[in-house]
Amino acid sequence: MDLERNARLKVVLIDSRNPLNIGAAARAMSNFGFFELRLVNPYDVAFREAVSAVGAADVVRNAGVFETVAEAVADCSLVVGATGLGHRQMQHPLHRLEKGARLLRRHLAQANAALLFGSEKFGLSNGDVSHCHWLAHIPTRPEHDSMNLAQAVAVCLYELIRQPAAARRLPEAAEAAGAEEVERFTTLLEEMLQESGYTDYTRAKNGADKTHRLVRRLALRAKDAPVWTGMLRQVLWKLRNP
Amino acid sequence: MDLERNARLKVVLIDSRNPLNIGAAARAMSNFGFFELRLVNPYDVAFREAVSAVGAADVVRNAGVFETVAEAVADCSLVVGATGLGHRQMQHPLHRLEKGARLLRRHLAQANAALLFGSEKFGLSNGDVSHCHWLAHIPTRPEHDSMNLAQAVAVCLYELIRQPAAARRLPEAAEAAGAEEVERFTTLLEEMLQESGYTDYTRAKNGADKTHRLVRRLALRAKDAPVWTGMLRQVLWKLRNP
Repeated sequence: MDLERNARLKVVLIDSRNPLNIGAAARAMSNFGFFELRLVNPYDVAFREAVSAVGAADVVRNAGVFETVAEAVADCSLVVGATGLGHRQMQHPLHRLEKGARLLRRHLAQANAALLFGSEKFGLSNGDVSHCHWLAHIPTRPEHDSMNLAQAVAVCLYELIRQPAAARRLPEAAEAAGAEEVERFTTLLEEMLQESGYTDYTRAKNGADKTHRLVRRLALRAKDAPVWTGMLRQVLWKLRNP
Repeated sequence: MDLERNARLKVVLIDSRNPLNIGAAARAMSNFGFFELRLVNPYDVAFREAVSAVGAADVVRNAGVFETVAEAVADCSLVVGATGLGHRQMQHPLHRLEKGARLLRRHLAQANAALLFGSEKFGLSNGDVSHCHWLAHIPTRPEHDSMNLAQAVAVCLYELIRQPAAARRLPEAAEAAGAEEVERFTTLLEEMLQESGYTDYTRAKNGADKTHRLVRRLALRAKDAPVWTGMLRQVLWKLRNP
């Protein structure tokens, strides 16, 4: 997480009505390492006590309050509006969030940017949009594109900090059981099968090979192998000592 | 949005305390095209009336209620737990969400899967985790990894529906003004500069070329060019008719 880059982003909530939404947005900001919240004309000045800002009291306490969008974005050389599909008819460039976040990240590498969110009820007004260089569209279902404000903030910030490379990275090497452990398990299994009178593998041609392949497909973990062999040992003892 | 694939995902909320969170989670599901919500042992049976389920009343109304995790995931061949970093010490495979969503998407192409979210206060219990094949970790800041439940749902579902290709796509071709329009604008600009007595370009060597390059760098839009030329025309008229 590049906190220095993140610090260049100003999250601007315009005309927010519900202090709980402001608090919840602050929480999402803190979760993803963004700390500069700016409010334009919030309906409720009591937002600084919002209980929803779990773990993000500082973000809310330090939030700047502005009367106009122009003042809130004055120190930003890029202004982006977050929007549903509703604004598609506008003559403003519109990027899906995947692309928008990439452009925003590139800008934040060097300079301040503002990300604008409109009111819960109406989204960004035409006046708000006129301050934006372009709009970012969260790819919601067209039939239901009105998102909860704080959820929209969370999704946008997540897209900003997500690491495409992480999706390509291989899973952590599974701590596979060593060959010796696997062999011990296999031997016990064969003994147990024999003792139990199970004939499919024990009497079959290449029965031992089949058992080995069967066990290999289990992908026994190092931590688990001793537990399994312990179980088999116990069963084997019981079979031999009925 | 692949609704058929989405329909194979069951979103399972375990021990949710706050009906508003259940409603807000349902709203995020509907935003991203997921409709099957399952609740294990919710604290408040009044959740079906949650006002926070804006636009997602059906999702809440149709939510299944189960007494145990086992029952809630019975028809799923993959069970994934969404978690903060708190579970890292567990011996369960853990993938960052970017990777986890990729694996989940692959599974959903063919079969049902469940995505589990724990209670607001405690997250997934060890018992819940024991039902999971692996865990998905939202890459929050380690110092503040406790997310709002519905925001966590929104972020996970967004990652499931996001299109990596969208980030690579070129921006829509800007509707640039045609050469004729640009030339008209340039001519008017030159006349205006001349009338105004501005000498830097009008009397400079290659002044016309410099003006042309200057205008080209403006990247005039088709929609805007007539407005600009109208403005210049008006100014020019006023210069000539003081």
